Amino acid sequence: MLKGISCDFEDKFREECGVFGVYAPGQDVVGMTYLGLFALQHRGQESAGIAVTDGENMEMEKDMGLVSQVFDEKSLSELADFGGTIACGHVRYSTAGSSHPVNAQPLVARYRHGALALSHNGNIVNASKLRQELEDKGHMFQTTTDSEVIASLIAQVGKPSVEEAIEACMDDIRGAYALVCMTKDKLIGVRDPKGIRPLCVGRLPEGGYVLASETCGLDVVGAEYLEDVKPGEMVIIDQSGLRKKEISTSKQKAFCIFEFIYFARPDSDIDGSNVHMMRRKFGAELAREHPVEADLVIPVPDSGISAAVGFAHESGITYAEGLIKNRYIGRTFILPSQNLRETSVRIKLNPIKKVLEGKRVVVIDDSIVRGTTSAKIVQILKDAGAKEVHMRISSPPVMYPCHLGIDTRSSSELIAYSHSPEEIRSIIGADSLGYLSIEGLYQASGLSLHDHCAACFDGEYPFQLEE
Amino acid sequence: MLKGISCDFEDKFREECGVFGVYAPGQDVVGMTYLGLFALQHRGQESAGIAVTDGENMEMEKDMGLVSQVFDEKSLSELADFGGTIACGHVRYSTAGSSHPVNAQPLVARYRHGALALSHNGNIVNASKLRQELEDKGHMFQTTTDSEVIASLIAQVGKPSVEEAIEACMDDIRGAYALVCMTKDKLIGVRDPKGIRPLCVGRLPEGGYVLASETCGLDVVGAEYLEDVKPGEMVIIDQSGLRKKEISTSKQKAFCIFEFIYFARPDSDIDGSNVHMMRRKFGAELAREHPVEADLVIPVPDSGISAAVGFAHESGITYAEGLIKNRYIGRTFILPSQNLRETSVRIKLNPIKKVLEGKRVVVIDDSIVRGTTSAKIVQILKDAGAKEVHMRISSPPVMYPCHLGIDTRSSSELIAYSHSPEEIRSIIGADSLGYLSIEGLYQASGLSLHDHCAACFDGEYPFQLEE
Amino acid sequence: MLKGISCDFEDKFREECGVFGVYAPGQDVVGMTYLGLFALQHRGQESAGIAVTDGENMEMEKDMGLVSQVFDEKSLSELADFGGTIACGHVRYSTAGSSHPVNAQPLVARYRHGALALSHNGNIVNASKLRQELEDKGHMFQTTTDSEVIASLIAQVGKPSVEEAIEACMDDIRGAYALVCMTKDKLIGVRDPKGIRPLCVGRLPEGGYVLASETCGLDVVGAEYLEDVKPGEMVIIDQSGLRKKEISTSKQKAFCIFEFIYFARPDSDIDGSNVHMMRRKFGAELAREHPVEADLVIPVPDSGISAAVGFAHESGITYAEGLIKNRYIGRTFILPSQNLRETSVRIKLNPIKKVLEGKRVVVIDDSIVRGTTSAKIVQILKDAGAKEVHMRISSPPVMYPCHLGIDTRSSSELIAYSHSPEEIRSIIGADSLGYLSIEGLYQASGLSLHDHCAACFDGEYPFQLEE
Amino acid sequence: MLKGISCDFEDKFREECGVFGVYAPGQDVVGMTYLGLFALQHRGQESAGIAVTDGENMEMEKDMGLVSQVFDEKSLSELADFGGTIACGHVRYSTAGSSHPVNAQPLVARYRHGALALSHNGNIVNASKLRQELEDKGHMFQTTTDSEVIASLIAQVGKPSVEEAIEACMDDIRGAYALVCMTKDKLIGVRDPKGIRPLCVGRLPEGGYVLASETCGLDVVGAEYLEDVKPGEMVIIDQSGLRKKEISTSKQKAFCIFEFIYFARPDSDIDGSNVHMMRRKFGAELAREHPVEADLVIPVPDSGISAAVGFAHESGITYAEGLIKNRYIGRTFILPSQNLRETSVRIKLNPIKKVLEGKRVVVIDDSIVRGTTSAKIVQILKDAGAKEVHMRISSPPVMYPCHLGIDTRSSSELIAYSHSPEEIRSIIGADSLGYLSIEGLYQASGLSLHDHCAACFDGEYPFQLEE
Repeated sequence: MLKGISCDFEDKFREECGVFGVYAPGQDVVGMTYLGLFALQHRGQESAGIAVTDGENMEMEKDMGLVSQVFDEKSLSELADFGGTIACGHVRYSTAGSSHPVNAQPLVARYRHGALALSHNGNIVNASKLRQELEDKGHMFQTTTDSEVIASLIAQVGKPSVEEAIEACMDDIRGAYALVCMTKDKLIGVRDPKGIRPLCVGRLPEGGYVLASETCGLDVVGAEYLEDVKPGEMVIIDQSGLRKKEISTSKQKAFCIFEFIYFARPDSDIDGSNVHMMRRKFGAELAREHPVEADLVIPVPDSGISAAVGFAHESGITYAEGLIKNRYIGRTFILPSQNLRETSVRIKLNPIKKVLEGKRVVVIDDSIVRGTTSAKIVQILKDAGAKEVHMRISSPPVMYPCHLGIDTRSSSELIAYSHSPEEIRSIIGADSLGYLSIEGLYQASGLSLHDHCAACFDGEYPFQLEE
Repeated sequence: MLKGISCDFEDKFREECGVFGVYAPGQDVVGMTYLGLFALQHRGQESAGIAVTDGENMEMEKDMGLVSQVFDEKSLSELADFGGTIACGHVRYSTAGSSHPVNAQPLVARYRHGALALSHNGNIVNASKLRQELEDKGHMFQTTTDSEVIASLIAQVGKPSVEEAIEACMDDIRGAYALVCMTKDKLIGVRDPKGIRPLCVGRLPEGGYVLASETCGLDVVGAEYLEDVKPGEMVIIDQSGLRKKEISTSKQKAFCIFEFIYFARPDSDIDGSNVHMMRRKFGAELAREHPVEADLVIPVPDSGISAAVGFAHESGITYAEGLIKNRYIGRTFILPSQNLRETSVRIKLNPIKKVLEGKRVVVIDDSIVRGTTSAKIVQILKDAGAKEVHMRISSPPVMYPCHLGIDTRSSSELIAYSHSPEEIRSIIGADSLGYLSIEGLYQASGLSLHDHCAACFDGEYPFQLEE
Repeated sequence: MLKGISCDFEDKFREECGVFGVYAPGQDVVGMTYLGLFALQHRGQESAGIAVTDGENMEMEKDMGLVSQVFDEKSLSELADFGGTIACGHVRYSTAGSSHPVNAQPLVARYRHGALALSHNGNIVNASKLRQELEDKGHMFQTTTDSEVIASLIAQVGKPSVEEAIEACMDDIRGAYALVCMTKDKLIGVRDPKGIRPLCVGRLPEGGYVLASETCGLDVVGAEYLEDVKPGEMVIIDQSGLRKKEISTSKQKAFCIFEFIYFARPDSDIDGSNVHMMRRKFGAELAREHPVEADLVIPVPDSGISAAVGFAHESGITYAEGLIKNRYIGRTFILPSQNLRETSVRIKLNPIKKVLEGKRVVVIDDSIVRGTTSAKIVQILKDAGAKEVHMRISSPPVMYPCHLGIDTRSSSELIAYSHSPEEIRSIIGADSLGYLSIEGLYQASGLSLHDHCAACFDGEYPFQLEE
Repeated sequence: MLKGISCDFEDKFREECGVFGVYAPGQDVVGMTYLGLFALQHRGQESAGIAVTDGENMEMEKDMGLVSQVFDEKSLSELADFGGTIACGHVRYSTAGSSHPVNAQPLVARYRHGALALSHNGNIVNASKLRQELEDKGHMFQTTTDSEVIASLIAQVGKPSVEEAIEACMDDIRGAYALVCMTKDKLIGVRDPKGIRPLCVGRLPEGGYVLASETCGLDVVGAEYLEDVKPGEMVIIDQSGLRKKEISTSKQKAFCIFEFIYFARPDSDIDGSNVHMMRRKFGAELAREHPVEADLVIPVPDSGISAAVGFAHESGITYAEGLIKNRYIGRTFILPSQNLRETSVRIKLNPIKKVLEGKRVVVIDDSIVRGTTSAKIVQILKDAGAKEVHMRISSPPVMYPCHLGIDTRSSSELIAYSHSPEEIRSIIGADSLGYLSIEGLYQASGLSLHDHCAACFDGEYPFQLEE
């Protein structure tokens, strides 16, 4: 029997999660969470879930699949009919081993101080140790998620209010976490002291507040952006409004630079900077660092578009569409037979010969992971008649795996770990290859080297990794 | 209970069908058809089907849904295990009334000369009359499709070979049809005498031929483009190879100009002209016809991209991304509550404020149908801070419904039928509005006025319509 | 990968269809059809369908699966909301080759005199010839069902009313047919001249009429039984009430005797005779023909129960339950591994050791087809401690295939075709084996030899079979 | 929109669970568990699950639905391919509030001493208190099941081996539990000290052991019955074989008498007594206690069959089938319209008029809960022509709810709580009504009053109930 295969033509890092929460008594909190998860779907396509409370009880629906697959008219109606006042949601991608329904989020648990729902984006580096300690105290675990470790910590720490409980646990937890936490009467957002993963707050026009991984999640429900939750800060939203509390500080911040490069949606702002604009600056800087004589600048859609616009503008080379992306290919499809596999990249990306024929082409991508797709792209551009193919990458070489919430390959699978740019150029068959430098990245963006994690490029992890 | 609603934010005409066929004994004809339908999915998202013959029997699988929904590992395996030599496929959109599984295609029928599978793109203008005549002769119909009328004509015309039968019927059939027809040993492609809907032929590297509505369907299976089937021409592919036959002529050709404007994929070529390049020319001409002082040119994604690139290049105004499209919204989604409907356009299109703030923006779309989405787009651009919004449409005003294979509204629903451009500008709230002129359309493209149907713009239908 | 296998432990003939129709303006005709199909589900478990008219239009829903699978809340609501005045339905089992959704019924077609829905139970012996003739006249066929042949005949015969059309076709059609036919204003029932398959009429308490294959279909909607449609008779129900017309006669009737033996539900009456009572008489006669010294009489559930009750009563031997049937096994289930197949019969039938141990057991089944299950049953009874196992079959040996609407094996697969009862006894390992004689069958039941088809026992088909 | 309704025509108590486990390295443990759950499906039809270990890891699949719905070819293959050595499974019915996927079993958890899977049948009467205590110690709960309470107790009790942990918890747990517990190298079965719910052990022919709620679960995998796990006993199965340990004793046993009356399958043996035989004895005793002049004894199928056979034999009145049960009605179906609800009981049970007309009928049912179905049954029997209807119930009046693993109504919904037998007779419209007496129940069966729980009849609960 034929088997569906992963349609991994993009050869990209994958974000692990998106989180959302809304406090808005009297409004359609389930509907807003549903819309919010649609807006954050790019952050995780493996499972989705919504939990809602009406001030007394908590209901939940979650399963494997896209938001549009997990929720149908019946299941969404049942949640909506619950008449909730607060809701939270989650979309998730996971590494292979733990792709199981029990690991879907939000996690809903009941402990001595009531019910708790938890949506978590990130990765706890000392999760094994924390888990071991909890097990030694007699706790058991039903999932393999960090979120269950966090919830267990909250449950056992013995504080009467959930905000005190979270605060009391925070010193123990090392790693990346942007949390949305819901009790029957409160919505809470927290970011780890280094602020590795994003989380922002917005205000609804008719009252109430929204928490979301990205501002595009605020936009879709008509919420006005207030601010990003600060590293080490907790935001508590309840009937007395919104209040903030600094619960932990870390001199060194470490916001994930890859959110700007690839993960976040271009229409989102992070700490006041728009992602699309940032990528245009990366593209412009790339044009300055690696200039080339050429006829056209084309993006690898969609992730290369913003940087390609910037490159074209800076270099004065004409911007063009040279590769068309098929919008109907999902995460997997069925490859019917072996000899059709060769043409499989063209089911997702097809070149426009009339644009490319006889042209010297600069093709812009945001990153190279294993290099396999880059080689195919160079090949199809050349097959389509491009005279020269100059690949430009709007980030530095990815050399180290992420341990803070991103699904990456091990170093051995990262082509730049073991090969120089010139070797990579040769392997992918391009006429030239240029990566944005780390210095250029910071300089172009105006971001501070000290406030960001760029460990995938430089290996400087913000935490000592567990063994 | 909540109900899923049509997510018709795009307010576009909708193509009704895509057709595909492959003759390649010894190769994976089912797999190729599956890939071909993926490539043609933009031409119809309501139902999909594949029929295959092994030279003796014919098997079929079809249902409502996207290609990825209709075919799973099991159903595709069953078709593939059949060991076919010829296959044909179909994707379909239909007008509301006839959205029923029995209307899915290909139509497979058995008549005195054996089994027949038929995939049809187009619309027969005298279908009611033909149907009535056939009913008067004692025929019955199980679907409401034109395709069943065509198949019935072929069955009753009394010719021993299917090509003679088709030829004999062709004089009776008035309207638009690009047909792919399969018997147990032949694959046949036909276009109506005016050549209204597209169909092209390609050759497989290891032998065999492919028919597809667009060249993107050839690319995806690695077939080399040979030529477009000519208006009034029949292409017969069997064990003796490919032969062509002119079976009907019409002095006036009438290829659907809207294929260039919106329907076809930008990477497809039609009669040697690339669709993306044509749209860039429309955009450039639009810039000449309706120049404006502005800071940015942005497309309404995806259909406005090519023209926006052309407009930007011609005008010298910077090209930018100002609206981001959510790729996870399908054809319908569930709108949870009334007051969330206002924000619903933003679930599909979200503006980038940092790009737009304080800017004079030219926004390029390919067409305006009812105008509702245009108004929303102007609004969200202004809400995002655009100082001026100048809408430019890369086609003339759509004033008349199509009766030749496109799902259009009646004239009363077409805003340009009853309103002048200035009135429309006022309704949608733009600072200026410019449509491409019909003359400009032809001049820019180099297409001949006499070879195309532009009835949606000028009301000059290639056929007298049935009453 | 594991594959579901047919759970054919019963080794029985299978009825091919059940039909239902209701004329009741102002009442819930869709709901009644749904209930009626549930009552007739034993007559066909492969596909189900309902068509309904409101006097103008006709809607339909049909698919592969049980009634409970084909209709969910949404699809049944859509049909019910249509506000129909007449409805008809169908459940179907089919022989292997034609198990395809397009063959599901009712068949809905439009011909010169309007729309027509057709539900058919039976088998036309000259269908190939009729089909060939129709094809020669230029007709095509989209299914492989006899029903489409009948509908085509009706469409082409040129009579203005459907009852005249049916009458005009009836002489041409040879074979078994119980038809329910619906137009926008009439419901029609017809049985073939020999009356091979059953059909009866009932009256609703609030007005309106019901047609059903069996009286259990009347009971479930509260209809009062009026009479069986007579062989060769047509019943027309419309706004002027119910009228009957004898449209064809055949001196020899040929009602399928197997309806009494196995197919029909025990609570149904056929032509005034209750099926359960008839089976008790078969059992009693069997006790007279094949007496045996024993301690217990047990049935093979469920089909042997009625006859076992009759056998026990006549013989004076204690009736007992010795085999328990698992009610949760559907038509297929997944047999995990080869070595578990041995125990597979016990997943469906499990013996009660405490009942059987040390006992001389008479086990009653209604028929033996291939004999495989009988052998397994004898084995599990002996394994459970039965001292002697005497098998008694409440019908004569099945030696010939049916060609009139029943799914049977070819003669070569019928164990009684090539083996004597003594040989069969030896093969299945029973201590004795007795079949009811043909004479006993008629004598016990009071049925007339001349009015029934018993071709599966005696090879005397009511029609000359087509070559 | 129409809604599916619970098809609760039977008006019965409902068992809450069935458990199964198998230790058989080198054999198809997943396949055996699948078959075992099919055999135990009558004990719970709401969710099903299987967990399996290969000695290192543990995999699980569970969901809402019947065994045949939860496991398809793909999911069962994935479990089977895991190559397990031990497996356990669970089928479940639950009370309304907690019908949620997270509550499906087996529960799989990881604690300090490794992975643990738990299948539980029963009800812990002090679960709230235990849960509260655990929460006070800092534990949280993700489900509302007693099983999670038990697992948490095991995890926190601090014993290195799971058998010691279970032993250490047993004194704290009050209530009914038959547990199957699996670690990576052991399979454990435990029954509560009073032995309220059943559990038995069998030996596989090729080595290995099976635990099942009923012996029918052993039969289906070919296992030989060894013995019932004793009240308060633990059975440990690992590579050194099977050993037993008495871990708790209670002078008073309290096996659920309702297992004999209704829950257990008739082909199962409990502690050496066959269920069917026991029910025949109840029927015979009932005939002695409540004799009546009548023509026929008929059962309410299926649960009344065994007792009806006993009643008929003892009384000398003819046994007959008078009500036919539709086998295709599942737990819910869609009732199309209000006025069809009256006939709805006949979709599940249809009388045979020819059997009943003019007859004095004794109808045997196993119990009466709310009385609604009994009234309908009397009505349809009378409508079918029965001259007299004498209802006989093969158990005493059900007056008190169960708190030990059975889904019962509150007392206010139990008709016998507030009405005398004569009042009930009048309400249901029977000519006479007789219940088996408690004394008769014990006397007939030979069971000891002191070893059984009959609280639903006499209100003598084996535990003081929690407030």
